[in-house]
Amino acid sequence: MAANIITGAVLIIGNEILSGRTQDTNFNDIAQAFAEKGITLEEGRIIADETAEIIIGVRALSSRYDYVITTGGIGPTHDDITAAAIAEAFELPLALNEDAHQLLKNYYGTGLNEARLRMAYLPETALLIENPISGAPGFRIKNVFVLAGVPVIMRAMLDHVMHQIVGGDIKQVVTLSFELAEGELAEGLSQLQNKFTSVEIGSYPWFKKASLGVHLVLRSYDNEALQSCAAAVRLLAEAKQSS
Amino acid sequence: MAANIITGAVLIIGNEILSGRTQDTNFNDIAQAFAEKGITLEEGRIIADETAEIIIGVRALSSRYDYVITTGGIGPTHDDITAAAIAEAFELPLALNEDAHQLLKNYYGTGLNEARLRMAYLPETALLIENPISGAPGFRIKNVFVLAGVPVIMRAMLDHVMHQIVGGDIKQVVTLSFELAEGELAEGLSQLQNKFTSVEIGSYPWFKKASLGVHLVLRSYDNEALQSCAAAVRLLAEAKQSS
Repeated sequence: MAANIITGAVLIIGNEILSGRTQDTNFNDIAQAFAEKGITLEEGRIIADETAEIIIGVRALSSRYDYVITTGGIGPTHDDITAAAIAEAFELPLALNEDAHQLLKNYYGTGLNEARLRMAYLPETALLIENPISGAPGFRIKNVFVLAGVPVIMRAMLDHVMHQIVGGDIKQVVTLSFELAEGELAEGLSQLQNKFTSVEIGSYPWFKKASLGVHLVLRSYDNEALQSCAAAVRLLAEAKQSS
Repeated sequence: MAANIITGAVLIIGNEILSGRTQDTNFNDIAQAFAEKGITLEEGRIIADETAEIIIGVRALSSRYDYVITTGGIGPTHDDITAAAIAEAFELPLALNEDAHQLLKNYYGTGLNEARLRMAYLPETALLIENPISGAPGFRIKNVFVLAGVPVIMRAMLDHVMHQIVGGDIKQVVTLSFELAEGELAEGLSQLQNKFTSVEIGSYPWFKKASLGVHLVLRSYDNEALQSCAAAVRLLAEAKQSS
C-alpha cells in the first residue's frame, strides 16, 4: 500500500538570523512537530525582511508543498511587513480583521495605539491563530501558517496549528550507533540501501579528540522493512567490529 | 560614496536537519563569519540529500549571489551525493582529483577503501579546501564553497575559506536595549527609519514571566548616520520611559 505522504516547508523571515545575531531555533521546533504529525519537511528558506523576498518565498513554497509555516515579521514595528507581503503574494486586500481588532483591544486596552493596530490588518479571509503570550495573533491563509518569530510565542502558536491540521503516515525511525568509522561501513551500507529501497539510511559520523563513531538513522513508512534493514545493519557492524 | 556590497548565501544539505533530529548550527557560524568579513548574507536554504534539489539550489544561489557556501553530503557513504550533484549543476565531469587522492592516501594509508576513495572524485577544476580533522577535503568550484556538515569540520574549513575570499564594506552595528514594549516605540521608530534611510533599524522584542523589553539593532555602512540615528533612538526611548 502506498504511504499517505503529506509535505511541508518552512520560511524563516528575519534579518537577525541572516546577520548572525540570532541562532534560529524555530526551524528545529517545527521540524520535530512535523515529524511527530506525519508531515515530511522537504525544504526551508531563510530570507530577509523584504517584501519582494517574502512574496517569492511564499509563492514558491505554497505551490509546491501541502503546508507552509512562516516565522517572523508580524509585530507592530516598521520592519514587520510579513502580513502585507503575504496579502500581496496571494493578491488579497490587507484589511482590518475584526476578530484580531477585538483581541488587541482586550489585550492592550487604552494602550492600543496606531502602531499596534497595524497588527490587526491581515489578508482578507485570514483565519486567526491564538497568541497566549503577547496578544497579537498569527494567521492562516490557504495552506500558509504565519507565526511570530519570538521562539516562546512561535511554539505556543505552533501547538495550535498542530491541532488544526491533518498529517499523513508517520515515518518510523531506528537509530543505531557504533564506534566505527563510517568509511568502514560504507560499502556494506550501500548494498543494504540498494536492497531496502523503502528505507532511508542516513549516516552521520562524529569525531572527538580520541575517538570517532557513526550514528545510522533508518527511516521508513514500512515498519517490517525497517526492522529487517536494522537487523542487517547490526550484522554488518558486528562483522566489522570483530574483524 | 556608494558602499562596496558583497553578497552571500548558504545551502544546508541534510535530511537530518529537515527531520528535526539535528539542530543546525552551521548557518549561524557562517552568518557570523560573513558579517565579520563584510559579506551580506542574503538567503539560506535547507534541502534534502537529493540530487535534483541540490542542482536547483546551487544554480539558483550561485547565479544570484557573490559567494555560496554549502554544508553536508561530502563523506564516503551512499547518502553523500553533494560532489556529484554539484558537478552536474555546473555541467562538469566528476573526476579523480589527484591532490585529493594524495590527501586521502596520507590520511587513511592501507585503510583507503573504495568507499573512501569516492571522496577524491570531485568536479573537474575544483580547488581543495583543507580538512584538518578527518582528511577528506572540501572544495571550491566557481563561487561555490562545498564544506562538510559535521560542525567541527565545517568550522575548520570555514576558517580556510574566510582567508581566501575578499569581503566588501563591513556594516557597523549599534545595539540598544530598553525595558519598553516595542509597540510604545513603533511610531517614533518608523519616523526615524524614514529619516535615516541608510540605517537599517531592527526591532526584536523579548518576553519573560514578569517583564518585557526590546533590543533595537541598528546597522549601516555609514558610521556617521549610524551614530546620529542611535542618539535619536536613545532620546525617543528616554522620552517614553519618563512618560
